[in-house]
Amino acid sequence: MNSIGLISMQYARPFAAEHFPLFARMKELGYDFVELLVPEPGEMDLTAARAALADAGLGVVLAARVNLQRNLSSEDAASHRAGIDYLKYAADCAAALGATVVGGPLTGNPLVFAGRAPQPVSETERLSRKQRCVAGLKEAGDHAAGLGVTLAIEPLNRFESDVLCTTQQAMELLQAVDHLAVRLMLDTFHMHMEEASISEAIRLAGSLLVHFQANENHRGFPGTGSTDWVDVCRALHDIDYRGPISLEPFRRNDDRFGVPFAQWRPPHEDESERLAASAAFIRSHISLTEFRR
Amino acid sequence: MNSIGLISMQYARPFAAEHFPLFARMKELGYDFVELLVPEPGEMDLTAARAALADAGLGVVLAARVNLQRNLSSEDAASHRAGIDYLKYAADCAAALGATVVGGPLTGNPLVFAGRAPQPVSETERLSRKQRCVAGLKEAGDHAAGLGVTLAIEPLNRFESDVLCTTQQAMELLQAVDHLAVRLMLDTFHMHMEEASISEAIRLAGSLLVHFQANENHRGFPGTGSTDWVDVCRALHDIDYRGPISLEPFRRNDDRFGVPFAQWRPPHEDESERLAASAAFIRSHISLTEFRR
Repeated sequence: MNSIGLISMQYARPFAAEHFPLFARMKELGYDFVELLVPEPGEMDLTAARAALADAGLGVVLAARVNLQRNLSSEDAASHRAGIDYLKYAADCAAALGATVVGGPLTGNPLVFAGRAPQPVSETERLSRKQRCVAGLKEAGDHAAGLGVTLAIEPLNRFESDVLCTTQQAMELLQAVDHLAVRLMLDTFHMHMEEASISEAIRLAGSLLVHFQANENHRGFPGTGSTDWVDVCRALHDIDYRGPISLEPFRRNDDRFGVPFAQWRPPHEDESERLAASAAFIRSHISLTEFRR
Repeated sequence: MNSIGLISMQYARPFAAEHFPLFARMKELGYDFVELLVPEPGEMDLTAARAALADAGLGVVLAARVNLQRNLSSEDAASHRAGIDYLKYAADCAAALGATVVGGPLTGNPLVFAGRAPQPVSETERLSRKQRCVAGLKEAGDHAAGLGVTLAIEPLNRFESDVLCTTQQAMELLQAVDHLAVRLMLDTFHMHMEEASISEAIRLAGSLLVHFQANENHRGFPGTGSTDWVDVCRALHDIDYRGPISLEPFRRNDDRFGVPFAQWRPPHEDESERLAASAAFIRSHISLTEFRR
């Protein structure tokens, strides 16, 4: 049975020591692990965090945060190097916290959140970006492997990344990286936008999938949108996926004109009932895939 | 029966006199109208274009292009004014071409394509943006009405606009504008990302809907993705929608690592067979809604 997790951003960003009591709350709501953003240096006492997680009986997965200054894809040597160093640092944080997976858009080149507009790319530059990602992931993968940590690259939608958007693109990259500590994570929010079929993409990923984010098409609570969750969970079952499944339902239901949906906002009311139902929703879907035939 | 159209960008951008022979090609492929981007001043001879459309027996709908310098939502008075003047200009172009609808993100505030990152907005500024959009749409609506043209506001996904993303938000704005020449258009590409249910959103729009874009979740050819077209077309039938339906399947099928999907690219092969099938796909779905009970 897969473990079910919740992103820390559901409650707060940045997530610091004052928020550690929320670990017990997550556990009560039915979550097995928390997905933490990789803390910036000095943002979180990792030893205290690990103890707080243990106290709450909660596991942990890490989500990497890239930007243009730490960017595997960058043609700027310093940014490329900082991108590699950041992944090593993220693996160190994982080891310190007891996490075995660091996922996220590790290939870099953030688009809308870095204030970049889509631009054409020459074939030479496209291939160079790939080469830089391959080299960087091999080096960071070696470091992660030594710590028992797996790096999981994540395709994002076309507006958040201009290098990696689909499972097929990720498979091409992983084949070139060819490293046991470099694997794949998928997020249904992005897949819903970019894949011809979410379930076919999951089957394509197969045994390379090590982390999964079950997000609704609009990033609200699962079951409140149009994702075909039965189809998604059957595909996970078909590839015998046993890894973590985390939820990030942090788009608040606020349809007033002019509220910017892509901008993260803290919760404005108690979401406990919906969060508990969301964990049960995904868990029950996964359970029932066993009995479909 | 709804008329079925194709966006000019499917072939070329900018679309100029040299491309007018494509009008006859579109007609042959099964399209009733072309959706043209509102030409910038001097970009297209409108009289010649109108004659070419008539020769081909093709109708026309216009798609407005906003930017930060012509932006109804802007707090900068000059940009706000330029936003209003642009909508009047677009209505003039429509009248010159024989179009009766100008659609698009008329409320402005482009995000990713203007290189803007999502930012928080104060409640005061949110309400000011709404007020500016209402005033601008009323003024431009008066001008359009005098020409027999309707302006259709379009909700975009969260990464393309930070003012108008859902049908509910649009309904709130239209209620405030309260103008017969200001109505709504919807695009399933954006709806797929932002709406809890595309068909419920169409039913919410009801009689205010004057233009519709039938785009696949990944902007490829309809029927090649995960949109539930039967559900979409039944909803259009239920609200008795008789207006135009246009297609914009301009994401080319190219899953090589590092190809930026949000960047428009020209066709790299003959797409005629798929374009003809796409027109027939939507037309047949619409036809069969009549016979579902």
